Order: sequence, then structure tokens, then C-alpha cells
Amino acid sequence: MAKKFEALRAKMSPESRFLADKKAQGMLAEMPLKELRQARGLSQKKLAEALHIQQPAIAKMEKRTDMYISTLRSHIEAMGGKLEILASFPDGTVQINNFSDLG
Amino acid sequence: MAKKFEALRAKMSPESRFLADKKAQGMLAEMPLKELRQARGLSQKKLAEALHIQQPAIAKMEKRTDMYISTLRSHIEAMGGKLEILASFPDGTVQINNFSDLG
Repeated sequence: MAKKFEALRAKMSPESRFLADKKAQGMLAEMPLKELRQARGLSQKKLAEALHIQQPAIAKMEKRTDMYISTLRSHIEAMGGKLEILASFPDGTVQINNFSDLG
Repeated sequence: MAKKFEALRAKMSPESRFLADKKAQGMLAEMPLKELRQARGLSQKKLAEALHIQQPAIAKMEKRTDMYISTLRSHIEAMGGKLEILASFPDGTVQINNFSDLG
């Protein structure tokens, strides 16, 4: 069953495999959207302006535990970032790109 | 503006910073959900069974360009994986954990 996946992994550079594994081991800083905004030095007001929405909508958004991927993407892009969606498995990590083409 | 973010980054290990940067440079394999399922050696039928839904729903899902994060998470978990949501910036990458506690 893991054969095709292993074949895909074999096409990755050794460095890329190593990095994917480290990623899967959770070596990145983790934080909720609110902390990320603060870490970027942005106020709710400023982020609301960038998204052309009202400030209370930002407060509401930051409390949500589920949302459309497109909504999250806009939110992160308004902070100057890029959304990346990964699926990690014991034998490797891949980036899901179904959602990359959204406007 | 990037000061707080730099402070957060400073708390990461050099290895972790290096990895986050490589991640941001897009060194992971990219694929849509359908290819990922095939790479995992799963049929639409088998995945549908794992999700307790009908097979056509899988076909439909794999064509979608937007969905709720919780839906995507179930889909990836049914394949035996773990969903990870990253926000990458020119000066670093963080994992967003607003959505980690969903059932």
C-alpha cells in the first residue's frame, strides 16, 4: 500500500525528505490566528481595513474553530503571509494543492 | 513591525528556523487530494467506507476547490494522515492551531 507513496518520496531530494520528516515531527512554532496577528504587529483595526471588513468581524473570526479554507487564506494573506495545507503521514508529508488557485 | 515575530523566531532552534525557511521555499511534494489518495493506495470506495459516506461523495470532494477545514481534516485523517495548516511569511513559518481541537 505504501509503495506508490514511497515512489513519490523517492523523487524528493534527500534534504526535502529530511525536512518533510522534521515538519511531521512538529518542529514549527504553533499559535492561534490572534497570536499570529499580534506577532506580525497588526491591530484588529488594521487587519480589518486590509480585508475591507469591520473590526468586530476580525474578533469573531479569531475565535472560530472552523472556517472555509478560502476565508482562512484571505485572512493570512491580509497579514502578508501565504497559507499552506499539509497532510503528514508517518512515512512523509505532502502539500495539498486543490485549493491553491483560489482568487 | 516584524520585531515581535523576530522574537518568536529567536525562540525556535536554529534547526527549526532552517526547516521553516525551507518549508516556506516550497521544498515539499505538492499534489491534489485525488493523487494523494492514489499515492496512499486507496480506492474511492475504501476511503468512502472509512468516512461512512457514499463513493460519489468522494469523487465530488476531490473536485472541490474550497471546503471547511473540518471536512478536509476528516478526509485526510481517513487516509491515515494528519492535517497541518501553516502560514508562511518571508521571515518565517508558523503552524496555525485554532483548528486543532476539532472532533
